[in-house]
Amino acid sequence: MTVLPRKIINDPVYGYISIDHPLLLQIVAHPFYQRLRRIHQMAMAQLVYPGAVHTRLHHSLGAYHLMCLALTELRAKGTPISEAEALGAKIAILLHDLGHGPYSHALEGLLAQGIAHESMSLWMMQHLNAEFDGALDTAIAIFTNQYPKPFLHQLVSGQLDVDRMDYLTRDSYFTGVSEGTIGYDRITKMLVVHHNQLMVEEKAIYSIEKFLVARRLMYWQVYLHKTVLAAEQMLKKILTRAREVAAEALPNLQFFLAAQAPAPTPELLLKFAQLDDMDVMMAIKTWQNHPDVVLATLCKALLNRRLYKIKMQSQPFELATIAAQQQRVMQQYGIDAASASYLVFTGTAHNTTYTTQDERINILFKDGSVKDISAVDNALVQHTLSATVDKHYICVMP
Amino acid sequence: MTVLPRKIINDPVYGYISIDHPLLLQIVAHPFYQRLRRIHQMAMAQLVYPGAVHTRLHHSLGAYHLMCLALTELRAKGTPISEAEALGAKIAILLHDLGHGPYSHALEGLLAQGIAHESMSLWMMQHLNAEFDGALDTAIAIFTNQYPKPFLHQLVSGQLDVDRMDYLTRDSYFTGVSEGTIGYDRITKMLVVHHNQLMVEEKAIYSIEKFLVARRLMYWQVYLHKTVLAAEQMLKKILTRAREVAAEALPNLQFFLAAQAPAPTPELLLKFAQLDDMDVMMAIKTWQNHPDVVLATLCKALLNRRLYKIKMQSQPFELATIAAQQQRVMQQYGIDAASASYLVFTGTAHNTTYTTQDERINILFKDGSVKDISAVDNALVQHTLSATVDKHYICVMP
Amino acid sequence: MTVLPRKIINDPVYGYISIDHPLLLQIVAHPFYQRLRRIHQMAMAQLVYPGAVHTRLHHSLGAYHLMCLALTELRAKGTPISEAEALGAKIAILLHDLGHGPYSHALEGLLAQGIAHESMSLWMMQHLNAEFDGALDTAIAIFTNQYPKPFLHQLVSGQLDVDRMDYLTRDSYFTGVSEGTIGYDRITKMLVVHHNQLMVEEKAIYSIEKFLVARRLMYWQVYLHKTVLAAEQMLKKILTRAREVAAEALPNLQFFLAAQAPAPTPELLLKFAQLDDMDVMMAIKTWQNHPDVVLATLCKALLNRRLYKIKMQSQPFELATIAAQQQRVMQQYGIDAASASYLVFTGTAHNTTYTTQDERINILFKDGSVKDISAVDNALVQHTLSATVDKHYICVMP
Amino acid sequence: MTVLPRKIINDPVYGYISIDHPLLLQIVAHPFYQRLRRIHQMAMAQLVYPGAVHTRLHHSLGAYHLMCLALTELRAKGTPISEAEALGAKIAILLHDLGHGPYSHALEGLLAQGIAHESMSLWMMQHLNAEFDGALDTAIAIFTNQYPKPFLHQLVSGQLDVDRMDYLTRDSYFTGVSEGTIGYDRITKMLVVHHNQLMVEEKAIYSIEKFLVARRLMYWQVYLHKTVLAAEQMLKKILTRAREVAAEALPNLQFFLAAQAPAPTPELLLKFAQLDDMDVMMAIKTWQNHPDVVLATLCKALLNRRLYKIKMQSQPFELATIAAQQQRVMQQYGIDAASASYLVFTGTAHNTTYTTQDERINILFKDGSVKDISAVDNALVQHTLSATVDKHYICVMP
Repeated sequence: MTVLPRKIINDPVYGYISIDHPLLLQIVAHPFYQRLRRIHQMAMAQLVYPGAVHTRLHHSLGAYHLMCLALTELRAKGTPISEAEALGAKIAILLHDLGHGPYSHALEGLLAQGIAHESMSLWMMQHLNAEFDGALDTAIAIFTNQYPKPFLHQLVSGQLDVDRMDYLTRDSYFTGVSEGTIGYDRITKMLVVHHNQLMVEEKAIYSIEKFLVARRLMYWQVYLHKTVLAAEQMLKKILTRAREVAAEALPNLQFFLAAQAPAPTPELLLKFAQLDDMDVMMAIKTWQNHPDVVLATLCKALLNRRLYKIKMQSQPFELATIAAQQQRVMQQYGIDAASASYLVFTGTAHNTTYTTQDERINILFKDGSVKDISAVDNALVQHTLSATVDKHYICVMP
Repeated sequence: MTVLPRKIINDPVYGYISIDHPLLLQIVAHPFYQRLRRIHQMAMAQLVYPGAVHTRLHHSLGAYHLMCLALTELRAKGTPISEAEALGAKIAILLHDLGHGPYSHALEGLLAQGIAHESMSLWMMQHLNAEFDGALDTAIAIFTNQYPKPFLHQLVSGQLDVDRMDYLTRDSYFTGVSEGTIGYDRITKMLVVHHNQLMVEEKAIYSIEKFLVARRLMYWQVYLHKTVLAAEQMLKKILTRAREVAAEALPNLQFFLAAQAPAPTPELLLKFAQLDDMDVMMAIKTWQNHPDVVLATLCKALLNRRLYKIKMQSQPFELATIAAQQQRVMQQYGIDAASASYLVFTGTAHNTTYTTQDERINILFKDGSVKDISAVDNALVQHTLSATVDKHYICVMP
Repeated sequence: MTVLPRKIINDPVYGYISIDHPLLLQIVAHPFYQRLRRIHQMAMAQLVYPGAVHTRLHHSLGAYHLMCLALTELRAKGTPISEAEALGAKIAILLHDLGHGPYSHALEGLLAQGIAHESMSLWMMQHLNAEFDGALDTAIAIFTNQYPKPFLHQLVSGQLDVDRMDYLTRDSYFTGVSEGTIGYDRITKMLVVHHNQLMVEEKAIYSIEKFLVARRLMYWQVYLHKTVLAAEQMLKKILTRAREVAAEALPNLQFFLAAQAPAPTPELLLKFAQLDDMDVMMAIKTWQNHPDVVLATLCKALLNRRLYKIKMQSQPFELATIAAQQQRVMQQYGIDAASASYLVFTGTAHNTTYTTQDERINILFKDGSVKDISAVDNALVQHTLSATVDKHYICVMP
Repeated sequence: MTVLPRKIINDPVYGYISIDHPLLLQIVAHPFYQRLRRIHQMAMAQLVYPGAVHTRLHHSLGAYHLMCLALTELRAKGTPISEAEALGAKIAILLHDLGHGPYSHALEGLLAQGIAHESMSLWMMQHLNAEFDGALDTAIAIFTNQYPKPFLHQLVSGQLDVDRMDYLTRDSYFTGVSEGTIGYDRITKMLVVHHNQLMVEEKAIYSIEKFLVARRLMYWQVYLHKTVLAAEQMLKKILTRAREVAAEALPNLQFFLAAQAPAPTPELLLKFAQLDDMDVMMAIKTWQNHPDVVLATLCKALLNRRLYKIKMQSQPFELATIAAQQQRVMQQYGIDAASASYLVFTGTAHNTTYTTQDERINILFKDGSVKDISAVDNALVQHTLSATVDKHYICVMP
């Protein structure tokens, strides 16, 4: 009887995470993957929820764990999944966030502009695939939804994927917002494959509703919490301003600041693989003494948690209010109108909990029929959850 | 500095529950209250969720604990609440379930027919009040909503009372249905009194939604779980049948079986105060050898968890199906049609998560305006949660 | 691909417990097993810890779940365990407490005197084995330690068996004594088989210490908590007194009261299989009106939680103190000296956390050497934990 | 009725932390305090326990919360504590870790050499005291144990202080090492003041034992986990090497690298208040391309988690083994013997769980007598826990 090498990682959320394949161990040990230790999962949310300092690496490991559970469950229900397919799905989820840059979503599109993090993830996976002699072929096919068993891709990325299940569970654990808890174990046990599509059994309907409502709550109460939003806007403004006024940052970050939309060259890839939250936070620490008053003000403010005052409401803000505030900061800080837009500005936050068009949560009924959750009698989802909700905000530097 | 006598009770749900007033200690020590140890909170749910064996006493203590938290919170926000009022509210919640009979809701209206458990609770409170020389006056006024500060009654009984907050939290803990978890601590912190009415602050909206969805889930997944329903129907049928055929039960239970709608005499009260789950379960153990085949069959079935087969659906069942099954059991058990209706029957389960008419959850906005949750923009509650949902079921003895 | 029938049970402690073998499902559905629903795991502990109302059935299921985890782990480490052996071990643990009578340990040796619960478990297993045509042969061999792979028996019963791991974990969950928590998941992952003996890996030493200290704490803080002890002594005294004075109890209990040391006949077995906590509690409810003042007093006291005053200390109590109290109750209740011994008496509670003689926790070091935990350098266990600690108590009826 | 301003912070460990005094709010908002957001509580432990990324700020808030609980408890037991004293104790604990530098203990004594973190904390508190016009006088007196009620200092710093109670609880939560859980709520409820000294009630003995054993477990399993130790040694070696070879770091860090034992000038204080984990981690990112092969090698290794191989044992390592390894790295990396000592070296880790000399945990018995826990009959602590345990280790760069 052969005993496989195995690494067991303590995870406060699931207890233990086992990694039991040599290729998985090599991938986890790769610098590309280890870099995710230095990227916070929740960007600036820690300024409101001090526990929310967990990393992308931790989230990826968690999503991988749920993938293992889901695959075991589907196999137990008779869905044929080969060893190679299982390994591919595990790699795909382990690497799905590889392409996130510093502070993930908060800065997405600002550094390495024009390259979505999913594209970057794919690119880095291809790079690893070359290094590992094609061992990631199946993983890449699954990740890009070109693999003939679409349910494997749906486990990685869909309305009810292990990515979402992990981040809701994990973010809830680390923020302490216990209301974000979902029944990941129950949902996992209710997964089923029908005509090669991922579905859930009928009796999971209430768990799915709970999942969607928990997600909705996490968006408005945590991810789009007005203070978190203010902090992340501040972070964005800092980097945008730095691009204009800060000729010399640390070399690596400088590369991304200099080139707004850099060409996707191998050099870019390797430089990106060196970039993480540290570069940005250290630059901010340095810039707090920058001669540009706007940049220095914002950096000091973020470091010391003296954030924009922010207001959120359903209606857009009146132009007069905005103008008055801009007037004030121009005078107070001795800056021009263009600069003032860094200290006073408006925007819109929006969230759709459930979209019927693109992605669906299909329910498999006992009689073999399939319905989208939004079409189920008495389900919550029909009316409310699928509408896009917009909230307007104004940020003002005091 | 005087140090009050204090009793600290270990509670797995909240950690510790403190009882720190001599009158509260006396009430808890009273046989009326101790009797609640022998009444299960969740009747037959333990046949599906083996952990759900907690008692009414435990739930009352938990609700009392939340009342203490809520009162502290409201006072901290400037709502004047005197010591006597606080004590009254605590007693009212401690005793709110005093009038539950054996297996609570499952048998409500069957023993001591015509007396709702709330009326019985009130009656027993009045009895205690006499014993304690009027010390429960305020508690009774609050319980019956005759006290001039209605928010105190609303804490005891309303859409968002500490009763519901405790039972959802506690039932979730003991069943292991983690999806029933609500943010009781967050909701408690968001309570506020406005014009003497209990409300929640604007920022609690998502927590309230979560609370309502958790409640909805607990109803369908736990309280009205089809197997739980089958078991509780079996319990009801047993007692109804016993009333017909079992002349001699144990004396105390016999009293309630003999008189279908007993007169509300002091004798009844004292007999009721002696009645608990034990009487019923022991009778069932005895009746499994009863000459009446229906009674014996049902008792054996319940004790050994060989329950009715149950089916639930949105549409009523066809009469032909029912008739065929009744035919079968008549033959199989050698019984007449009237008796067969104990072994084959249909019914309806229903749940309304939120009713706008009777009770409301009012949201207090920062601008001082008040809206019912169902009137808030983008809230979940408007369409779906406030509709009554009916499910039809058929129970069949195999 | 065949899909096995599977039953998933919600467990608040471990999340889900899966039963996936037809024989296991049949055993769990058997009346012998279902009876365990009506036997509290922790007897009278609920009078101090109101949440401690879980049942022997629940504990057995939990221990079974840990057995599944342990077997999976050992197999992953290369220990050969056949399907039949795994099934045997699972059955053995599922049924290990089958022979517990009403209120388990609290009344052990009082009803069905002279038959330890383990012997009764074995007897009932043999009865089931006959019913299931020998399908329990392996289970019985493992249970009685006659199976050639002793580690299987050690998993069922030993210093570090899944029985103890479950009851500590579960009792901690239901009492809310969080300090009783052990690292069952970590310990399970550290189990290893060496020369057919169950051991733990070196790196589990601190977890083992923690386990032993948690157990020690649970004994003194919960199982031998002085008020729990007082309540359980009261229960014992009630039944002993009833045996003397109560000619007529309910039929089944009467059988066991009448015959102090009944012959181990098939009739006894079947009667025992009908006996549970209900019989005893219902008898106590009836006896509170018994003409014997001692019996009536004790029954009322237990039902209303007016327990003996109890004092615990390291030294034995002085005879004069005892005599004075007995004098008092003789006068107060108008009873003779023999009867007074039901209301005033002394006793000794003792606990040895770790015994080096009988059972050992062996540590397997990386270099292949094996040491008992009490022989490991710097381990806690050497001096203190292996000494028997006695505490003297006196119980006095007020 | 006045309503105080109040800030409620979500904490996954305790639920909510309330800050309800204007001075506390100002202190928390001060840049000195906000800097603690950028110092990890557990240095490099996250390389083994990926969840262990929480910050010193979070720990300080948690310890503050426990202080609030403890003060409430002591007052409820009749210990007179004035508002000013309570505020002082709260400030003292909030600021007790203010003087920690980058990576706290892991680098203590390396930057700002010769200044223990407690002295630095005191210094910074004095600086704040000047800024807040003496409002911290009481806090400082408590922190330095010069306040006439020594129990207040003991709550901040002693064998059983809220600092330890928080870090054990919190580190256990974030690592997922559930065995490190202590009964902080029970211990807090058992605190008592006797002759102005902090003690625990007799019935807390087992909780105290559990606390000490949990602490012992956390030391060996987490804080001194061999891989954590290897990583922290690597961090130390990097900074020591950088001091020798890296002339130019980022300005602020450079100041501390240049001056081995800098004079305690106001300039130092302000520079220190700017220093955090970011400075060090960013320097390491830069140094991975440093011309010095030792520095570059170590930096790359730490960033990519390719740590020293480490071995731990009770006996010292043989010189021959060490010499052979040093020989190997000299050759492999082309470096001299002095440089080789950065890649191969030995050391000793040690832990004493309980020291009877300095600090004591006093138990107050019901009869009014006081004993140190190590003098209590049958207590665990006597023999084993109070001995210092040394473990030798060798680190080798592969």
